[in-house]
Amino acid sequence: MIILLKDKVNEKQVTNLTNWLEHSGFQLHISKGAHQTIIGLIGDTSRVDMDLISSLDIVDRVQRIQEPFKSANRKFHEDDTVIDVGGVKIGGGHFQIIAGPCSVENREQIISVAQAVKRGGAGMLRGGAFKPRTSPYAFQGLHEKGLELLKEAKAATGLPIVTEIMEAAHLPLFEDVDVIQVGARNMQNFELLKELGQTRKTILLKRGLANTLEELLMSAEYIMAGGNNHVILCERGIRTFETYTRNTLDLSAVPVLRKLTHLPIVVDPSHGTGHAEYVPAMAMAATVAGADGLIIEVHNDPPHALCDGKQSLTPEQFEALAKRIEAVRPYAVR
Amino acid sequence: MIILLKDKVNEKQVTNLTNWLEHSGFQLHISKGAHQTIIGLIGDTSRVDMDLISSLDIVDRVQRIQEPFKSANRKFHEDDTVIDVGGVKIGGGHFQIIAGPCSVENREQIISVAQAVKRGGAGMLRGGAFKPRTSPYAFQGLHEKGLELLKEAKAATGLPIVTEIMEAAHLPLFEDVDVIQVGARNMQNFELLKELGQTRKTILLKRGLANTLEELLMSAEYIMAGGNNHVILCERGIRTFETYTRNTLDLSAVPVLRKLTHLPIVVDPSHGTGHAEYVPAMAMAATVAGADGLIIEVHNDPPHALCDGKQSLTPEQFEALAKRIEAVRPYAVR
Amino acid sequence: MIILLKDKVNEKQVTNLTNWLEHSGFQLHISKGAHQTIIGLIGDTSRVDMDLISSLDIVDRVQRIQEPFKSANRKFHEDDTVIDVGGVKIGGGHFQIIAGPCSVENREQIISVAQAVKRGGAGMLRGGAFKPRTSPYAFQGLHEKGLELLKEAKAATGLPIVTEIMEAAHLPLFEDVDVIQVGARNMQNFELLKELGQTRKTILLKRGLANTLEELLMSAEYIMAGGNNHVILCERGIRTFETYTRNTLDLSAVPVLRKLTHLPIVVDPSHGTGHAEYVPAMAMAATVAGADGLIIEVHNDPPHALCDGKQSLTPEQFEALAKRIEAVRPYAVR
Amino acid sequence: MIILLKDKVNEKQVTNLTNWLEHSGFQLHISKGAHQTIIGLIGDTSRVDMDLISSLDIVDRVQRIQEPFKSANRKFHEDDTVIDVGGVKIGGGHFQIIAGPCSVENREQIISVAQAVKRGGAGMLRGGAFKPRTSPYAFQGLHEKGLELLKEAKAATGLPIVTEIMEAAHLPLFEDVDVIQVGARNMQNFELLKELGQTRKTILLKRGLANTLEELLMSAEYIMAGGNNHVILCERGIRTFETYTRNTLDLSAVPVLRKLTHLPIVVDPSHGTGHAEYVPAMAMAATVAGADGLIIEVHNDPPHALCDGKQSLTPEQFEALAKRIEAVRPYAVR
Repeated sequence: MIILLKDKVNEKQVTNLTNWLEHSGFQLHISKGAHQTIIGLIGDTSRVDMDLISSLDIVDRVQRIQEPFKSANRKFHEDDTVIDVGGVKIGGGHFQIIAGPCSVENREQIISVAQAVKRGGAGMLRGGAFKPRTSPYAFQGLHEKGLELLKEAKAATGLPIVTEIMEAAHLPLFEDVDVIQVGARNMQNFELLKELGQTRKTILLKRGLANTLEELLMSAEYIMAGGNNHVILCERGIRTFETYTRNTLDLSAVPVLRKLTHLPIVVDPSHGTGHAEYVPAMAMAATVAGADGLIIEVHNDPPHALCDGKQSLTPEQFEALAKRIEAVRPYAVR
Repeated sequence: MIILLKDKVNEKQVTNLTNWLEHSGFQLHISKGAHQTIIGLIGDTSRVDMDLISSLDIVDRVQRIQEPFKSANRKFHEDDTVIDVGGVKIGGGHFQIIAGPCSVENREQIISVAQAVKRGGAGMLRGGAFKPRTSPYAFQGLHEKGLELLKEAKAATGLPIVTEIMEAAHLPLFEDVDVIQVGARNMQNFELLKELGQTRKTILLKRGLANTLEELLMSAEYIMAGGNNHVILCERGIRTFETYTRNTLDLSAVPVLRKLTHLPIVVDPSHGTGHAEYVPAMAMAATVAGADGLIIEVHNDPPHALCDGKQSLTPEQFEALAKRIEAVRPYAVR
Repeated sequence: MIILLKDKVNEKQVTNLTNWLEHSGFQLHISKGAHQTIIGLIGDTSRVDMDLISSLDIVDRVQRIQEPFKSANRKFHEDDTVIDVGGVKIGGGHFQIIAGPCSVENREQIISVAQAVKRGGAGMLRGGAFKPRTSPYAFQGLHEKGLELLKEAKAATGLPIVTEIMEAAHLPLFEDVDVIQVGARNMQNFELLKELGQTRKTILLKRGLANTLEELLMSAEYIMAGGNNHVILCERGIRTFETYTRNTLDLSAVPVLRKLTHLPIVVDPSHGTGHAEYVPAMAMAATVAGADGLIIEVHNDPPHALCDGKQSLTPEQFEALAKRIEAVRPYAVR
Repeated sequence: MIILLKDKVNEKQVTNLTNWLEHSGFQLHISKGAHQTIIGLIGDTSRVDMDLISSLDIVDRVQRIQEPFKSANRKFHEDDTVIDVGGVKIGGGHFQIIAGPCSVENREQIISVAQAVKRGGAGMLRGGAFKPRTSPYAFQGLHEKGLELLKEAKAATGLPIVTEIMEAAHLPLFEDVDVIQVGARNMQNFELLKELGQTRKTILLKRGLANTLEELLMSAEYIMAGGNNHVILCERGIRTFETYTRNTLDLSAVPVLRKLTHLPIVVDPSHGTGHAEYVPAMAMAATVAGADGLIIEVHNDPPHALCDGKQSLTPEQFEALAKRIEAVRPYAVR
């Protein structure tokens, strides 16, 4: 971390600052120029409150050199993290497709989709029981009933289940859930992240619509700071001015995150594009870009899905796509 | 709402759709062109799930004509809503400045700031007890202790208190809080919004970093759908590519919201700009643009504030600014 | 196109409007509701000035159903356009890598890079002679001298050359250039586009930093409206809030443009990411997503490049990448 | 400027770099840490090519401390620049409203609007003769004829005229134009900026849709580097995800630019919002925020304007607004 002092600060203030920093455990390198003094901090600066220092009277600017995340940082954990979800591994060369409907609608639907995606090659089943919807008047999911149906689908297929949580108070309901998803709108719901850090569940953390990759990693850090290292990161598109797609899928997030962190990275081309017809191109591209997995919406009857039908593949389309993904995997950039 | 059907749909499918829509209580206007059929829906379409209809096989596109929000909509509630917070009114010509520190730090700090902002002309006291911070290693607020100190400051000054909630489970702690703030990162924490809809507390709802004004109104709708009409909307800056300011304060939100809704609108120039030196210009501009109030960070010792010191005014600066705001109020555009 | 009239318009105004529209050659479908009248226009609405109609007193809103671009529209030209650049074809199944340095620096540099990229498998040579730089104090290119050196490199290798134009007045200098590039900052330099429409040169049109895909196609339309159909579209990243990458490469532009237009589509992963280390992943991903080509920066000595060295591959890296691209091409989604 | 070297660079490379920097005329401050060496540069770094240095093998990162603009920088020119446009002054306490139609349409229109805005209190007349339009099929302006009509309007009213240039080759036509406008889409048309730098005309430089304030100042620097210091900066809204307004007017640009530069700053609330009904609130807000002027669209018959009628005020609305602006000016924050 580098601290740039303002022009013409008095000597005593500088000494006060440097004493305080040294007492805080940092090694300092001070460079005094004709006009500007620069202080370099050596040590674990991830725990330093930059806002605090940058608001000091004599400080002009503070610049980080190191990343502010630590547990998630590849620099301190060189090897890829491999997460084992009930025997299904993801990360470190293990690739998984998580597939299923946007919402769990009824027993027949979820079980038939689960069987179909398993046949198609999916390693896990997704399905929403609690649905975050912009409008209070839109379908909000089946809640507990939905979770029950997911468990039945798991029993019928053996697929681990992935489903979204919207509030820490619901945690007891998620005991039998294999992977708990934190949706884009809750990526910075820090209270929820802290509580998930207290569990040992695998967390699928989706990037927020307006969040940087650094903020995504800081949210992972919230979970990991609690002792839970089972975090899967998910790129699902960010909000831009473009309107032909629902969001702008930022695929470069894959190689960037690969460099910054050891955590597994999955891509959601369904929400990323919002249109079933664009899902295959983006799913294939994400695979080749080096993702550890994909999360794809599949519905037995997309036109009648209770949410997001427009972006869902049919089981047949999914099966065809999964084969192409399997074929292209050896070419992935890692 | 207008439904555009695809080219060459068969007659039977169209009849199925129109029958279903009529049974759902809508009056229809159907226009059959050589290539395209257009269905106009008359009725309360705010409760229609557009995604559902647009995903139907025969539907090309769905376009709303009416806004999807209803309780918050000025069309159905022409007069400005006036909210009475313990005798302090806001909205409908009543203007209030909400001022105070980013975080409650200790008794002396909060009480002295409260007295200072009261002297300066503030109508309510703000102060964070639960702080949403990007990093798990940054100061997170004094929690219950902070709420207690706020109550002491209220007792000392008579100012109603405004403070942020981060989780519905904390609601019991907020019983004596006058205005509960929902922060930008929780604007679409729908579970929290629903629970706040069950209370009769005044809610200060901040716009999310990447949320449209329509989404802000839909989040207000979540609260109002529960029966709680005491909602104050807050523009606090959106995320763009510009870096000289912390966020981009979207002041045009004031006249746009004024037209769309009857709810009071306040502006936060402190978070909107992130720099104390830009706060006066934006506070004055917001006042003239027609805001019903402002929320301004004030700290007795900004350089040593535990968070956001950079954007806090000193009590002296606040007092000077409040006078200028008072002077310019008669020129506000309404 | 659909025109929604305001509530309570008088009959005479409506008749005036409909008469005018019919005289303008449109077939109309009028649907009168209890509150709102809707007029549907059938005909070539790409030449209608929406702003003009939407500003009429009695009009509430105008919504396009058809795209506003015509020459570039796949609906009116189903087959992929194949462009022949001096014997090198692109589009309709023909895939080309355009490679070379950001800037032409000197004879030795451009000829050695040209030979290297040819060996590596590039089909065309890129190199900047006129460089758009944010700062007037940064290196601006060798201008005429740079164009001369490009021609020498073409003579030495047989590779067609691609280079950027910054002003229509420079056109005479570009007589021997095979593909004229319009950079992102000039995508809406309409005077330049019009002049290029008068030539029969192939134009490589890059998407602007804040431009939608529809605007990109409208800019192509400017060129095509002049009679020049040799347009190649280029996705090179848009500006967002993310800072780890120079821009956010919007790879979903590939399948979206594929659907909307018949023109060839290339992707620039060098500018899209801004870092050589992320280029391979994004180049591979773009190929699999169905791009017709790539444009990649290659420099014999990236650390000493006079511009954009950070994002340039070495000839060795390029050759290795080109082989991987060739291998993955059969898996491309089309 | 600070140069951060990579870990473990060899001594000889460092010496090469520091020698080169010293020969380039910089004074250096070198700070060697256990892991990282930091080089501080003192001198005129606005002419340093950051990209070049940051791409060197041994360099990890380069951080500017000083702004990269110099002629436009308030640090080197403390007093506000006052520009005299044919006797009408702007900047340094002189405030002007520039008003008129989007496009010049015919003699009667432009003269009657010119007389009306003069009566209303405008100091200059705006009107487009060359119009940048997204679609090649939309009205493009009257060109030379439009410029002639503007001159007639100037003769009739005495108001200096402001009109947009779209290509350097058109410059001879602009000889009698008082203020040449560079539109948002041409803000980084560097060839045009360079040619304008060779004139001594006043240039009204509009911020691009996706350009930072630093880039706006760098574009001003292009003009000033040519010796033309008569530059007026214009905030006219940036592109974001919000759709209720045409653009997002970034009013905080006013105090930020005020601090960074000595050039006059005007605000365009017409393009900034896109709706006449929001213009008064934003015009008043911009005035109070400290702008040196406003540019407002006024049309005698907005519903029949050939472009942007939706955002134009009538002469009566303009006159009423100008009076309110005059009244609020004493409260402006400077």
